[in-house]
Amino acid sequence: MKLYPERSETAAGMAEAMQAGLTTSVQIVETCLSRIDDRESELHAWVSVDRDGALAVAAERDRERAAGNLRGPLHGIPIGIKDIVDVKGMVTGAGSPLMAQGSPVDRDAELVGLLRDAGAVILGKTVTTQFACFDPPPTRNPWNVSHTPGGSSSGSAAAVAAGMCPVAIGSQTGGSITRPAAFCGVFGCKPTFGTVSVDGVVPIAESLDHPGPIARSVEDLAIVLSVLEGRSTSSSNASDADQDSPRIGRLRGFNEDLVDPNLKSAIDHALDDLMTAGCLVYDVDVPEGFDELLAHHKLIMAAGAAAWHRDRFAKHRDDYGPCVASLIEEGLATSATDYIKAREHQGVMSQRMNALLTEGLDVLLTPATIGPAPDASSTGNPAMNAPWSYTGMPTVSLPIGVSDSGLPLSIQLAGRLNGDAELLRVSAFCERILLTR
Amino acid sequence: MKLYPERSETAAGMAEAMQAGLTTSVQIVETCLSRIDDRESELHAWVSVDRDGALAVAAERDRERAAGNLRGPLHGIPIGIKDIVDVKGMVTGAGSPLMAQGSPVDRDAELVGLLRDAGAVILGKTVTTQFACFDPPPTRNPWNVSHTPGGSSSGSAAAVAAGMCPVAIGSQTGGSITRPAAFCGVFGCKPTFGTVSVDGVVPIAESLDHPGPIARSVEDLAIVLSVLEGRSTSSSNASDADQDSPRIGRLRGFNEDLVDPNLKSAIDHALDDLMTAGCLVYDVDVPEGFDELLAHHKLIMAAGAAAWHRDRFAKHRDDYGPCVASLIEEGLATSATDYIKAREHQGVMSQRMNALLTEGLDVLLTPATIGPAPDASSTGNPAMNAPWSYTGMPTVSLPIGVSDSGLPLSIQLAGRLNGDAELLRVSAFCERILLTR
Repeated sequence: MKLYPERSETAAGMAEAMQAGLTTSVQIVETCLSRIDDRESELHAWVSVDRDGALAVAAERDRERAAGNLRGPLHGIPIGIKDIVDVKGMVTGAGSPLMAQGSPVDRDAELVGLLRDAGAVILGKTVTTQFACFDPPPTRNPWNVSHTPGGSSSGSAAAVAAGMCPVAIGSQTGGSITRPAAFCGVFGCKPTFGTVSVDGVVPIAESLDHPGPIARSVEDLAIVLSVLEGRSTSSSNASDADQDSPRIGRLRGFNEDLVDPNLKSAIDHALDDLMTAGCLVYDVDVPEGFDELLAHHKLIMAAGAAAWHRDRFAKHRDDYGPCVASLIEEGLATSATDYIKAREHQGVMSQRMNALLTEGLDVLLTPATIGPAPDASSTGNPAMNAPWSYTGMPTVSLPIGVSDSGLPLSIQLAGRLNGDAELLRVSAFCERILLTR
Repeated sequence: MKLYPERSETAAGMAEAMQAGLTTSVQIVETCLSRIDDRESELHAWVSVDRDGALAVAAERDRERAAGNLRGPLHGIPIGIKDIVDVKGMVTGAGSPLMAQGSPVDRDAELVGLLRDAGAVILGKTVTTQFACFDPPPTRNPWNVSHTPGGSSSGSAAAVAAGMCPVAIGSQTGGSITRPAAFCGVFGCKPTFGTVSVDGVVPIAESLDHPGPIARSVEDLAIVLSVLEGRSTSSSNASDADQDSPRIGRLRGFNEDLVDPNLKSAIDHALDDLMTAGCLVYDVDVPEGFDELLAHHKLIMAAGAAAWHRDRFAKHRDDYGPCVASLIEEGLATSATDYIKAREHQGVMSQRMNALLTEGLDVLLTPATIGPAPDASSTGNPAMNAPWSYTGMPTVSLPIGVSDSGLPLSIQLAGRLNGDAELLRVSAFCERILLTR
């Protein structure tokens, strides 16, 4: 396993190679399928792979390209879709035996339609934890199969890390994009809340759910995000890192007592290298009210899950995993007044955390996780990520090194609300420094 | 009491008279104060009247006008402010003995700042029911003092009806602008949800609270609303009724079994006259899900009240009126899942009710209340109004006649979300027909 892939392994590189006539979408899909054949039996990243369908679409995209008709920036690029997102003709299983018995859905989620419109080839559905919560999935970490890939976008992160597809779609309510991306040594972006449609996506909590991309470079995150947000941004624009040196705020009081020393020292080294490259780094304290954030986040997530699952849970309690069942029970016992107070706190903290970025800082920096991937009996701790799901601010996670135990370590950069494009530019700057040092 | 005032009794007419040199702001304020002296002892519309302050500001506005400096469309116009809205230097009593003991607040609510910027003269604070809920206030109906003026904007409606001020600010969570305006035979506008700031306004439920104007003509509603929304619309634009004849949808299934026969027949007559004047009238059924609307509205309102009052209520239970106490207790017993389900229903019904106006209709028409003002032992039934507070769609209430018992009767027109200006144009058309017939 390599921490930073060759450009030919990224969506942007593949698009260039196809355009130069060096490869085809069919060849790219065949390479993905061959890697799935190689490692799927140990990784369990996929719920289903649509081999024939993907090859047929790839062939059509190749014919279109030959005729000079490009659909968009993902023309001919294979993509995996987390199995809580509706893909027409496939079952949406959501990691649950209850849902897996359902019928294939008859329409695409809005975000899947946008991906198809941009030319993407839907390769299949990737494994999610049960209802995108915390019960450990069958998926394993490509860096060490006795470890978790993280959750809940477990299959999406493992598949991208193992080169089974250059890009996959995940979603985050607590830490479900950033954590698996970081544990698997790939790149993840949780966009600003509300910018990517949740239409056709199995919900947890309406005010916390964020779909977003997992990929192998910041450039690819930017390309996919522009498609998911329904914007038409060219990849060259999105990867433009020619700007003043970023001003980075290192957050203090951000649950750092939980963080592994190995990761702490890797971040110190990364910051030294970023400062050498011209970044300005400041210490910033978390705002008042941060201490209650994780408890309120959990309450909102539990209440949301309980509201959505209530009827099904009453009938099928035994078909739920212990973690999601416990979350739902907590939500069922929550009062409306506690929920309203938590939502008020969420609004206040969103303003306060965002306000940290109004005074001369471009991004906030924290560890992406509390340490490297733990063993496969859990999906890891979302404490570094839940605050951003709560405030809605966009984040990017970037690999910065490998732990003594041989597992990836990552930082997380957070931008201001609706400042996704700026965050991605700063992230591209940092990526360039970190992967060439 | 007259149903439709002379133009000189409206804000627009007063502005014209001042501009023509026929009167001054000081004279207008003095007339208001004299009417307050005449009837306040029987009506109890005011918590406090800032006689000296209002006269001093009026004199300043007159000097500014003489120098050619007009602040805005309300220059020199006296306005009453419901006593849940912060006015700098005054106590915000919210109809509660607990709040009335507080200190004067040190800043204006955002909407009060906008009124002042537009030149308004703040005359005083008008009576609200306790915490803008359902406990009967001391205020009486100017048409018959043994009857309620409605609630919760009781003092605002009574003061405008009695000519104590041309305009007053109310707020609506259930039916608290439309109902008192209708019971008192004046005009009320509940704007689209979110268009008027609730900053500095004592809340009931965040997703239901709407501040808005009560006035003596549609034109005045339009002028004040443009100020409250921070737009600068001239009054001539807002009162422009030169348009195609309105297409009116008469709602069926809208709790009409509750409606008084006197009011029903007054509406039939009004519709006949509107059709004679060229209006097209269609019958429209309420959408699926309407039957659950009032129960869900009550649940959201109760939970919101409980969340805001929880700590104070635990300490001071005996200082709460029976209606608001019962509402808070209902809210305290509500589960988060029921609250979330109700909020989801609110979102769905908002789309469905609004969609009734996407197919060739300009406004929806219903009774403004279930009948004329009942006696003063209650504030009346908000069943005709709560659906619009729930969906957020804008409404205007217009007087159409007087009941056999000598009390005003009104219709309510509802427009599409963010279609306030169009709703006001249609309302002005209807007003012109109804008051000249």
